[in-house]
Parts: sequence; structure tokens; C-alpha cells
Amino acid sequence: MAASKPQLTDELDIVIPTIRNLDFLEMWRPFFQPYHLIIVQDGDPTRTIKVPDGFDYELYNRDDINKILGPKASCISFKDSACRCFGYMVSKKKYIFTIDDDCFVAKDPSGKDINALEQHIKNLLCPSTPNFFNTLYDPYREGADFVRGYPFSLREGVPTAVSHGLWLNIPDYDAPTQLVKPAERNTRFVDAVLTIPKGTLFPMCGMNLAFDRDLIGPAMYFGLMGDGQPIGRYDDMWAGWCIKVICDHMGWGVKTGLPYIWHSKASNPFVNLKKEYKGIFWQEDIIPFFQAIVLPKDCTTVQQCYIELSKHVKEKLGKVDEYFVKLSDAMVTWIEAWDELNPKKDSA
Amino acid sequence: MAASKPQLTDELDIVIPTIRNLDFLEMWRPFFQPYHLIIVQDGDPTRTIKVPDGFDYELYNRDDINKILGPKASCISFKDSACRCFGYMVSKKKYIFTIDDDCFVAKDPSGKDINALEQHIKNLLCPSTPNFFNTLYDPYREGADFVRGYPFSLREGVPTAVSHGLWLNIPDYDAPTQLVKPAERNTRFVDAVLTIPKGTLFPMCGMNLAFDRDLIGPAMYFGLMGDGQPIGRYDDMWAGWCIKVICDHMGWGVKTGLPYIWHSKASNPFVNLKKEYKGIFWQEDIIPFFQAIVLPKDCTTVQQCYIELSKHVKEKLGKVDEYFVKLSDAMVTWIEAWDELNPKKDSA
Repeated sequence: MAASKPQLTDELDIVIPTIRNLDFLEMWRPFFQPYHLIIVQDGDPTRTIKVPDGFDYELYNRDDINKILGPKASCISFKDSACRCFGYMVSKKKYIFTIDDDCFVAKDPSGKDINALEQHIKNLLCPSTPNFFNTLYDPYREGADFVRGYPFSLREGVPTAVSHGLWLNIPDYDAPTQLVKPAERNTRFVDAVLTIPKGTLFPMCGMNLAFDRDLIGPAMYFGLMGDGQPIGRYDDMWAGWCIKVICDHMGWGVKTGLPYIWHSKASNPFVNLKKEYKGIFWQEDIIPFFQAIVLPKDCTTVQQCYIELSKHVKEKLGKVDEYFVKLSDAMVTWIEAWDELNPKKDSA
Repeated sequence: MAASKPQLTDELDIVIPTIRNLDFLEMWRPFFQPYHLIIVQDGDPTRTIKVPDGFDYELYNRDDINKILGPKASCISFKDSACRCFGYMVSKKKYIFTIDDDCFVAKDPSGKDINALEQHIKNLLCPSTPNFFNTLYDPYREGADFVRGYPFSLREGVPTAVSHGLWLNIPDYDAPTQLVKPAERNTRFVDAVLTIPKGTLFPMCGMNLAFDRDLIGPAMYFGLMGDGQPIGRYDDMWAGWCIKVICDHMGWGVKTGLPYIWHSKASNPFVNLKKEYKGIFWQEDIIPFFQAIVLPKDCTTVQQCYIELSKHVKEKLGKVDEYFVKLSDAMVTWIEAWDELNPKKDSA
């Protein structure tokens, strides 16, 4: 049914880090089938992912990544869903939607299936309002507008670079909170989309995320996680802090709220704790670091901003742990690889 | 029924600027009767407001205000609902809830009457999180928490100074938007409370508003509006900009979202346009002014912040229009009057 619905845009790829569960694609079939999928296979390249008939997809495993990027493949995480950002790099589309394979179609309060993709596209196609808060949330949504006292000069808004969707059922909690509240489920459907104000950081989750690749793609790097790294589960967070600082600098908006997906299962909190515990310490330094960053005015492209950011990371966070020196180098490698694969469009 | 419910606090006064409609109090009776009302009668003091039996109230008309404040009464607006701030000054309670007389009890999506007062008190009694955005909205609410990636050092939150509630039915639009969209009604119940991030301004509406008088009371001045003034309908906006800048400086939070009230009727857009049109110009200068304000570190009380702010208003906005010179003087008078009526508590 939804497959026959006119699409708001064709210019979108769906990036999925591994698919362990074939129900996943079957459930999303009516919504995903019209789009091209990029599957980035996490872990053992000899394992095969069986994609059901009818989907238009390309699949990359570690061997493919190594072949395409050569030595620069070092910037792509292994045995971690952070590898998904390779998919952002090889896509040729304007928009990316990325989703985890334990995220299913959620229902709205009326019981109707939520077309997450459609809502993300709507979010990305209409402007953001990061410079002043609108109390009735997204002013561009049907039935809403700017309220009294909202400056008219700001009502045009700014381009939207990122649309961050939420999760019903299993909330995206850290390991300590999972351990303390194992039974907590998110049952609250909040019918809102809002712009995260300029100057405000947020925890960006990669489970249900869309962005304008042409705008912010080069900053959507998910860092070094997983195999051989001292940290996991901070891939999306890292990207979120970087993109927010750069969007603020470039004058672009980041939205959060709708659409919801149904997050089916909680990951193991003990495993998560092991992956997270350094991040839990480090983020106490990382947040003030990102809050204090001021990018110079002569950084006028995302690539320039990102390279500048990588220098700050090395200089300031390098003191917190040597991991950040490695990460800083990987950020530079990422940009080099991005520009290599996207020669004209992004270095124009 | 609700009248017999245990109250979350006794330390609250309800401030109402005039009551033109007696249905108003009857409708709110189950929720308001346990509390003390302060009615500040707008306009002609010879007119009498008949308050139904059973309510505990005090009523002030212009003659009373003149008698109590003497020459300092000049800072209280006349023939404008901005006069309500006199009620904040004479209250002796910790919390204030203020509401307009065209605001009725709204229903939640299940059809249940919303106890707006109770929700405001909940908002004020639990902390705010202005320093980092939580994507699941109020992390202290039942069924919610801080999400993965939220720094643990920030999870204690900060005291909440202001709770800004919203409106179903007639949205709070300016005159131009009212004229363009006369039929628009707000039917979207967004089940969320959120903290407006530090450094972000918002349009604060006085229709359905609560605050901690002990914290932010002296900054909750509704300015010079109405009779003899070149502007109206910016009383709450002015207060909102001032309180937000001061809350950010003091490290306190401002929440918006729930509770909803039912806003029964739109005010006349032609009359509103006349009141607003200077404000519509001026706010284009006022917003950058407030966005740029940095209060000095040695301002450690709200009174000090407010006096400092008044100086900036005179110096910077005085150039926009001489009205702001008058307003700056009135801000000082307001603080003098506040301290006179609240000698120990606030100058301690």
C-alpha cells in the first residue's frame, strides 16, 4: 500500500549496519521497497546476509571496505555498528536514513503504522528554527504556526540538516540506567517535532536517524569503535556532538521528535557497560569541550569545520586519553576518504 | 472531587487580571477553591467584580494599587492585563499561578479534565535541565529518564523557576497571523514538558503561567502597557525575555509544555494589531539585544540582575525608542516597590 504512495523524494538511501533479523526487512517492506538500501555488514565478511527478494540493495562487507578505501579503511570501525558511516560515504543520494535492525514499525495512538521514512523526509524538507524557541513546536507543521512574540525576521527558518527520530518500547538508555530500570518501557507518544536550539548539545542516537548528506554528510562520522578500540556505543553520540557544533556554525538546523520506531529488544546491559564505561567518564570532559568550541569564521565548508574540529580534539581531548589522538587522525582520514569518493559535489 | 485531593503545596497564590466572565471561576472551582486568589482589577475601579461564594480571595483595583504603592504605582500598567504583576508583588506565597479569564479547563486525549495547577506545581517542584537536551523530554517524569549519552554530572538538574503552559483551541498568535489564519485551532495535544535550553529565548505567554516567586518573582515585571503607552500585548513577552536571561545567569530552569488550558476565544485581531504593531518592529531589535546580554558575575540576586538589565535597556534600547527609557525607569521603580513590599525575604 505505502509502496504505491507518491514519494516525497527519490533522493534517499537507507543505510543499515548488518541485518541479523530477516523479519526486519519484511516488516519495513511497504515503506523501504521504493528506496535503495546500502547494507554495511558488520564483522565476519564470510557470513552472508540473505536479503529477501524485491529489495534494491548493495552490500558491503569488510573486504569491500578495505578494497575501496585501501589504507584509509582504518577510519571505518570493525565489529561495531559504527561501520554504517561507510554507507554514508558511498551513497550518491542527497538524503540518508539509517536504522538498526532491531527497530520495527511503530504504531501511532490511533493504531496506524507509522511511516518513519516519510516523517523524516518531511522534517528534512521543511526549515528549522534554531535561533528562537517556538512554544507550539514545529511552526511549519499543519495546524501550527509561529506564536505571538516570535520575531518575523526569523520565521523563514534555516535549512534542516538532521532529523533525529525517537523510539517506543525500549528507550535508548545507557548501561547503568538499563541496570537500574530493566523494566522501563517508553509508552509515551509525544506528537511533536522540534528544533534543538543553537548552542545546545543533545545525545544523538543512530537507531532512527536521517540527514541531508549534501549538507552535513562529511561530518556524520561515527568514530572509532568496536574491534581494537577502548570504547563502544559512543559512535552516534560522537557524530551528534560534531554535527551539532558544525550545524550551529553553518546556520543549519537539527530536529528531534517524530517519527517513532518500535525498538524491539534491549541490548545486554553488562556487555553495554563494558563498552560504555570509558565513555561515561570521558563524556564529562567531552561535553564541556564541545560546549566551548568556537569554529573560526573562515571555515566555510563542512570539511574545513571538521578538520578544524579534529585539531581541537587532538589538542584538548588528547590530554584526556590517547584514544582521542587516534580518533583525531581518523577524523582527518575520514575526510580524505570522503573527498576521494565524492570528488566534485563536496569539494566544490 | 479534586478539591479534596491532597495538595502538592499550599504555598501558591492564583493571580487573575480581572474577571469578566463568572463562568470562569465556576469552571475552575474544583481546582482553584483550595487556593488563595489575588484578583487585580483592570480598568475602572468603580466597577465591581462579583466573586462567587466559596473562594478565598483578595481584590485590588486601581485605587488600591495607588494607595499601596503611592507614586511607585506608576510602574503598574493601567487598562491592560499587565496590571497582574501587582498581584505577584503583594503575594506572600512561594509560588504563583496566573491565568486569563478566557482560559477554561482543557481535556486530555482520554477526555479527562486537566488539572493545570497540579501539573504546574509538578513542573516547578522537579528540576530543570537547561545545560543539555534530553531527547525523551522531561527526564524526571514517570516512565522517562536521561537517555544514553547524557552526562551524569548534569543529571541532578537545576531548580525550576518558571513553568509555561500551553493552550488548546485558540492558539496564542499575533495579530498578523490571526488575520491570515482566522480559523486555525490548536488541536494537537503534545504530551511533553521540556526545559528551554540555556541561552535560548522563547515567547512567554502569560495566559497559563506559573513560577517560583521566591526565585524569580522580582524579574516577573510585565512592563508598561495599555493606557498612556504606545504598546500592548508585549507585557508577558517582555517579562519572558527578562526572566530567561536572568534564569540563565542564575542557573535556574524554565519549562514549557504541559499543562494545557482551553483558550475559549480569540481576541479581536484589529484591536490587537493596533496594540502590537510597534512591538512587531521593536522586537527585531529587542531579540538581538537580549541574545547579546551578558550579566556581570557580581550580580548575585535577581534584583541586582534586574537593575543591571534596566541600565542596558536604557542605554541600548533607548536608541530604538524613548519608550524604553521610560520602561527602564519603571523597571527600577518596580524593584524598589517589590523590595518595599517584600522587605526581609528578598533583600536578605
